[in-house]
Amino acid sequence: MLYPPPPPLEILRDRRNQLAAKFLHPVLLWSGQNLARNFPANTYPFRASSHFLYFAGLPLRSVVIHLQAGQLRLFMDEASPGAALWHGESPTREEVGACLGAEAAYPLADLPVWSADCATIALPDAHSRSQQAKLLQRPLPAADQAEGIDAGLTAAIVVLRLTHDEAAVVEMRRAIAVSIAAHRTGMAVTQQAPNEAAIRAAMEAVIVSQGMTTAYSSIVTVHGDVLHNDCYHHEVRPGDLLLADVGAEAATGWASDLTRTWPVAGKFSPTQRAIYDLVLAAHDACIAAMQPGVEYRDIHLLAAHVIAAGLVELGLLRGNPADLVDRDAHALFFPHGIGHLLGLDVHDMEDLGDRAGYASGRCRSDRFGLGYLRLDRPLQPGMVVTIEPGFYQVPAILQDPNRRQQYQDVVNWERLTDFADVRGIRIEDDVLVTEMGAEVLSKELPTAAEAIEAIVAGSDAA
Amino acid sequence: MLYPPPPPLEILRDRRNQLAAKFLHPVLLWSGQNLARNFPANTYPFRASSHFLYFAGLPLRSVVIHLQAGQLRLFMDEASPGAALWHGESPTREEVGACLGAEAAYPLADLPVWSADCATIALPDAHSRSQQAKLLQRPLPAADQAEGIDAGLTAAIVVLRLTHDEAAVVEMRRAIAVSIAAHRTGMAVTQQAPNEAAIRAAMEAVIVSQGMTTAYSSIVTVHGDVLHNDCYHHEVRPGDLLLADVGAEAATGWASDLTRTWPVAGKFSPTQRAIYDLVLAAHDACIAAMQPGVEYRDIHLLAAHVIAAGLVELGLLRGNPADLVDRDAHALFFPHGIGHLLGLDVHDMEDLGDRAGYASGRCRSDRFGLGYLRLDRPLQPGMVVTIEPGFYQVPAILQDPNRRQQYQDVVNWERLTDFADVRGIRIEDDVLVTEMGAEVLSKELPTAAEAIEAIVAGSDAA
Repeated sequence: MLYPPPPPLEILRDRRNQLAAKFLHPVLLWSGQNLARNFPANTYPFRASSHFLYFAGLPLRSVVIHLQAGQLRLFMDEASPGAALWHGESPTREEVGACLGAEAAYPLADLPVWSADCATIALPDAHSRSQQAKLLQRPLPAADQAEGIDAGLTAAIVVLRLTHDEAAVVEMRRAIAVSIAAHRTGMAVTQQAPNEAAIRAAMEAVIVSQGMTTAYSSIVTVHGDVLHNDCYHHEVRPGDLLLADVGAEAATGWASDLTRTWPVAGKFSPTQRAIYDLVLAAHDACIAAMQPGVEYRDIHLLAAHVIAAGLVELGLLRGNPADLVDRDAHALFFPHGIGHLLGLDVHDMEDLGDRAGYASGRCRSDRFGLGYLRLDRPLQPGMVVTIEPGFYQVPAILQDPNRRQQYQDVVNWERLTDFADVRGIRIEDDVLVTEMGAEVLSKELPTAAEAIEAIVAGSDAA
Repeated sequence: MLYPPPPPLEILRDRRNQLAAKFLHPVLLWSGQNLARNFPANTYPFRASSHFLYFAGLPLRSVVIHLQAGQLRLFMDEASPGAALWHGESPTREEVGACLGAEAAYPLADLPVWSADCATIALPDAHSRSQQAKLLQRPLPAADQAEGIDAGLTAAIVVLRLTHDEAAVVEMRRAIAVSIAAHRTGMAVTQQAPNEAAIRAAMEAVIVSQGMTTAYSSIVTVHGDVLHNDCYHHEVRPGDLLLADVGAEAATGWASDLTRTWPVAGKFSPTQRAIYDLVLAAHDACIAAMQPGVEYRDIHLLAAHVIAAGLVELGLLRGNPADLVDRDAHALFFPHGIGHLLGLDVHDMEDLGDRAGYASGRCRSDRFGLGYLRLDRPLQPGMVVTIEPGFYQVPAILQDPNRRQQYQDVVNWERLTDFADVRGIRIEDDVLVTEMGAEVLSKELPTAAEAIEAIVAGSDAA
């Protein structure tokens, strides 16, 4: 009756008990509600709050849970009789409560009785947030500005959600498996595709056919230099590279995030191949260096170093790689961070600003080569992070007169023109930190240039 | 530089001049902004306000237009320098203004200077609405509760948007052509599909591959009795009927809305065929009766009459069809309205409540057989409406003891058990009212049972 099937109750109970051990106040978490697209009855696909999903397990609409001492109380209204006509039979409050292992279940009207002294996390939509504030009878800033007991709750949840239990990893593996199938399909259809939209459609169809959704707006582009491209109308031409950053989200909300870059014609040009192999070398070096206790910032700087050294070798940069990284010269071509947390959100807990990504007392650097780093913590077993180095020729950076002035002595601009067919390359995998090191959860999708070429060309044996 | 390509300026100017002729106050229309999905940076695909799109033509984010005396003034902020890194080059304010045929273009900070005495239409999201209210320095109720000058603007826009100019019809034809291709694909993949999700994925892929989006949440189900089914996990079995209500929306925002019902095995059973032909007879009778001046409510009642008469003939209802419709007995099996307005919204202007759908002075009936009618106006040339009769066995209706009591003398419950393999059938087309009668814009997708069977079975010549 409930779809997707609820997670094992012992997992949910364990998460609630862990929260209780870290946070003594009672907690109210809202699941969120449908958001109107162009008119109230035409809504976007519902997405439950990730904090709610973590403790409740199911994407329920317009529901509130009360957590205290490891016990969950459910607040929901029964479906109206008319709802059965339009939406079919709904499970009753008692049935939903049983699925969640609720201590008790009440109508939403009973919430005020339970709201005293409760901490919460603000939802991102203004209407929900104002409902939360009204019930709690206090102003409620956005989640990244939480204060008082809400800041305490935030800190406790961050500790919990930073590392994943086995049930979470199982769900992420499911999402990743579907993303891998989508990328294989994308590579396989590229030679027949007239434009980016056709490749995107084929990739997302794999995700939708498995009852999943995309975890974020897909990037499927021959303009890899536009980092967050959400246009899909460009023609796909034989000399182009196709960059696809497409990830599935399981029906339970757990995300994946995967990028591959492949040659439209099934064969990298020598310049494309040289840069591809360099980005892959950075990717592999980062993963090899991952283990508990290592600073993620150092993983980022390692990628920067590998890329700087490779660009020196290719004659694109001049100087000593360590000095180049100190001067942020790598960021001319690798301007973003090496990755981020992954979990129920594709940038996990980014609704909390940097409170999840940055260890206590740390904050964003204003350095050109570090400011976009989304994660600055020592790695811990059970964390899942992305590793996604890249090389891009972004006009807004490379044509900026100030940057050109600043880096005039280290860039070989003439040599760079030989690489005009490399607009953007990114290779991204989802990596679990283990006791021993790291496990690439998305390793079934090959990264090596030859293997990628084989899938695009249709000569892949697997 | 702007995608999609902007519509012809003379069309936009004509719409603005028509508004000026009907409404003397200055008008401010907001395009709307990105809405967060699970965290602020992970947004749903942007959808501009339909009222904004009607006069501005382009799906621009976080933009406001000021309309007065046929002149448009654009208010937008230039993209930040950082935006070029993540999202590529953006057109400048002046370039966008030129595309829109703007008299002048200003930063958003200049809006207060222009906001005095302006009417507006409230956006559905709470954050946007509060921004509108703040700027206008007055409370702003939801769009369906508009008062004062906003009610006047609403009335003027309703008159304009009720009938479509040629440019609008061209865009709807485009969306419809893509929907037709999606339905053909859906039929063709059904026999190989393990479940509803696989069929949905194939249909939506056609839409995405053409650079369009779905105009509403697709209904692709073997449980046609759940009218707005948004689950897709059911297995698809040979004896089932597959009901697909899937419509594309052009990049410019213009919608289509199309439903077909087909036999999974490629052949209707005799009972399925009998009901299918009855629903089709109602569909055809409605379209044949459409012409300017005819009340849409009478089209609905005609469908009810055809269905009641057919059900008497099949031995499912007893009595005189006219009496049965008077008693709402048809609504036991056809509980919704015959259709609705179609335009920039799939239920066009439904953000305005019934102010668009219901002629002045009219309101919803409380009759079981009329209460769900979304449109109650005389037809006018240039209107586009859906015609979508259906037959459903909805447990919430047919198992309701009160309904069974009320209709015990007119329903042959035993005979109904013979039709257990007909959970739900709907046939929906998009129809333009012309001077002479009506044109089915979606007529390239066949409705006849044999033609549908042929596509599903793969023996369709076309």
